[in-house]
Amino acid sequence: MKKTALIMAGGRGERFWPRSRKQLPKQFLSLTDDGKTMIQLTVERILPLVEQEDIYIATNRDYLPLIREQLPLIPESNILLEPVGRNTAPCIAAGAALIRTKYEDALMMVLPSDHLIRYNGMFQTTLKEACEVAEKGDNLVTIGITPDHPETGYGYIRFAGESAQGRAFAVDSFVEKPTLEKAKEYLASNDYLWNSGMFVWKISSVMKRFRELMPEVYEGAKQLQEAFANGSGEETLQKIFPMFPSISIDYGIMEKSQNIYTIPGAFGWDDVGSWLAVERIRQSNESGNIVSGNVITIDTRNCIIQAQGKLIATVGLKDLVIVDTEDATLICDKASTGDIKKVLENLRICNRNEYL
Amino acid sequence: MKKTALIMAGGRGERFWPRSRKQLPKQFLSLTDDGKTMIQLTVERILPLVEQEDIYIATNRDYLPLIREQLPLIPESNILLEPVGRNTAPCIAAGAALIRTKYEDALMMVLPSDHLIRYNGMFQTTLKEACEVAEKGDNLVTIGITPDHPETGYGYIRFAGESAQGRAFAVDSFVEKPTLEKAKEYLASNDYLWNSGMFVWKISSVMKRFRELMPEVYEGAKQLQEAFANGSGEETLQKIFPMFPSISIDYGIMEKSQNIYTIPGAFGWDDVGSWLAVERIRQSNESGNIVSGNVITIDTRNCIIQAQGKLIATVGLKDLVIVDTEDATLICDKASTGDIKKVLENLRICNRNEYL
Repeated sequence: MKKTALIMAGGRGERFWPRSRKQLPKQFLSLTDDGKTMIQLTVERILPLVEQEDIYIATNRDYLPLIREQLPLIPESNILLEPVGRNTAPCIAAGAALIRTKYEDALMMVLPSDHLIRYNGMFQTTLKEACEVAEKGDNLVTIGITPDHPETGYGYIRFAGESAQGRAFAVDSFVEKPTLEKAKEYLASNDYLWNSGMFVWKISSVMKRFRELMPEVYEGAKQLQEAFANGSGEETLQKIFPMFPSISIDYGIMEKSQNIYTIPGAFGWDDVGSWLAVERIRQSNESGNIVSGNVITIDTRNCIIQAQGKLIATVGLKDLVIVDTEDATLICDKASTGDIKKVLENLRICNRNEYL
Repeated sequence: MKKTALIMAGGRGERFWPRSRKQLPKQFLSLTDDGKTMIQLTVERILPLVEQEDIYIATNRDYLPLIREQLPLIPESNILLEPVGRNTAPCIAAGAALIRTKYEDALMMVLPSDHLIRYNGMFQTTLKEACEVAEKGDNLVTIGITPDHPETGYGYIRFAGESAQGRAFAVDSFVEKPTLEKAKEYLASNDYLWNSGMFVWKISSVMKRFRELMPEVYEGAKQLQEAFANGSGEETLQKIFPMFPSISIDYGIMEKSQNIYTIPGAFGWDDVGSWLAVERIRQSNESGNIVSGNVITIDTRNCIIQAQGKLIATVGLKDLVIVDTEDATLICDKASTGDIKKVLENLRICNRNEYL
């Protein structure tokens, strides 16, 4: 069966401020040594599985110029421009509608645009396995990540102990972000995987669930499909999309459906959730610093320092994140990266939108 | 007797990098809340004692534009442009020669241009007392500072216990910068003052010592005096000044002379020796931060933060000095300000003179 992919690129992450901005969210940044942006890497990663003209991007209309610039080979007709953010369920339904103008039915991989994966080969193997499971019946497959620490920032997938389809396990339940105590329990139990937000299914399988569980979205998607086919897609999207409820696919569909499977992925997944991720992604020097740009370090250890044109000189520092940009510089203790959002709150309160 | 002043402004301090630069040393910076530069404050401080046309400035010729800009009321003919730095003794001899073109003899106060004084009234009283002592015989007077901690960064003056002339004590000896152990001894003995580098004497008194102790400088000064009088000063300075030995007035004259007195000053002297001085000079906010410019602090304590146009956002920091300028940003632990010079060494080695 034809393989297609929907890459979700509407996120407005704040955790990489000041490099990420409202007008330049994380998926359009390069955080790796190779200079490629997160979304470019996401596309590159699935090209061995999906033909270029079968890759679809869902994003906010503000980001169209960035998509064109960073992914010039993706056909413009494959770009779904959400007029407003409505979480993942409406996005996926609209994406499915767009794909259906080309294929009556197809396999659809749903992928975030701002995660990193270390072992692309293993990732591709996992997705192929997921496709095999998804092709059978009306199975919905989610890629689970084998946890290695009691993370409280992710949702979890509880799976049934016995393998049902090849490497795929039947999903027992989806669990919200846990407390640390709960997370430790989950880790020790060996019954849980992290919910990575990557899904594989046939379009017919997921649309069947929308019809049952979110009928208003299903009806909207049908209207959209017609509109996409007759060239009035943008207009109809403008009209219909804002009326969709803002609901995640996990909550709207996955938690309430039968025949849900998970395949454990062990391909070096990283959600790149904060500046600290840079330590996992990039090589540090002999002082433990990860430095880029115009930087002089004196007696400085275990720092992440990103300069641009301006010289950054550090003396006697340790465990800091220092990020310089054209108009703003962040200096943050590594233990406090979670508080970067407070800077943004402060900026919002003071109406200093130029920095957001 | 006529009172004159020679302000020494040739220093090339590096300790306020990146705000201080080779082309903009500390004396031309404003570090106080009032926006006035160090040298402007120095002049202002002595105006109740010395008439404007009797204030002389010795500086490097590179700094002439800065002097003109910051001290437009000082007559250009009162500016001594040293073609090269030769420490304080030759500078003072040349300054005395320049003053002598106007006054056969006069009181001459020699003052650094980059110190701060908290109590100007007390400072003026102390200088007046010094003038009285200097007017008698051929006394040379140095202003000593009552130490309040065992500082290893200053020279010390050992004085004879008994007051000889009013509040002035006879100087026993000058002592080089001590070890911490020695400094503690000096502090406990109550026999020592800090050497502030401020002197008062009659020109005739100090020139007599030059004749005795540094005759080549004395002869040079005589030539200079003639040249200043007949309009060929600059030319002669160019020719003669570089041949002077680079020797301090302490080492060349004070340590070897008789009739040396010191007056203890308790006027809130501060040599503003590093960024940490800002804590003594400027008010901190309720978090202990001393902040200027475009700054947002989140959970940040006891930091000195100087922004310019660019936004500086700090998260989870303590005890840092952060200084942003047009082309360079310093981030330095307060305990490591002494290592800022290593940044400059590094820049010199790499020939990155644009940052020096």
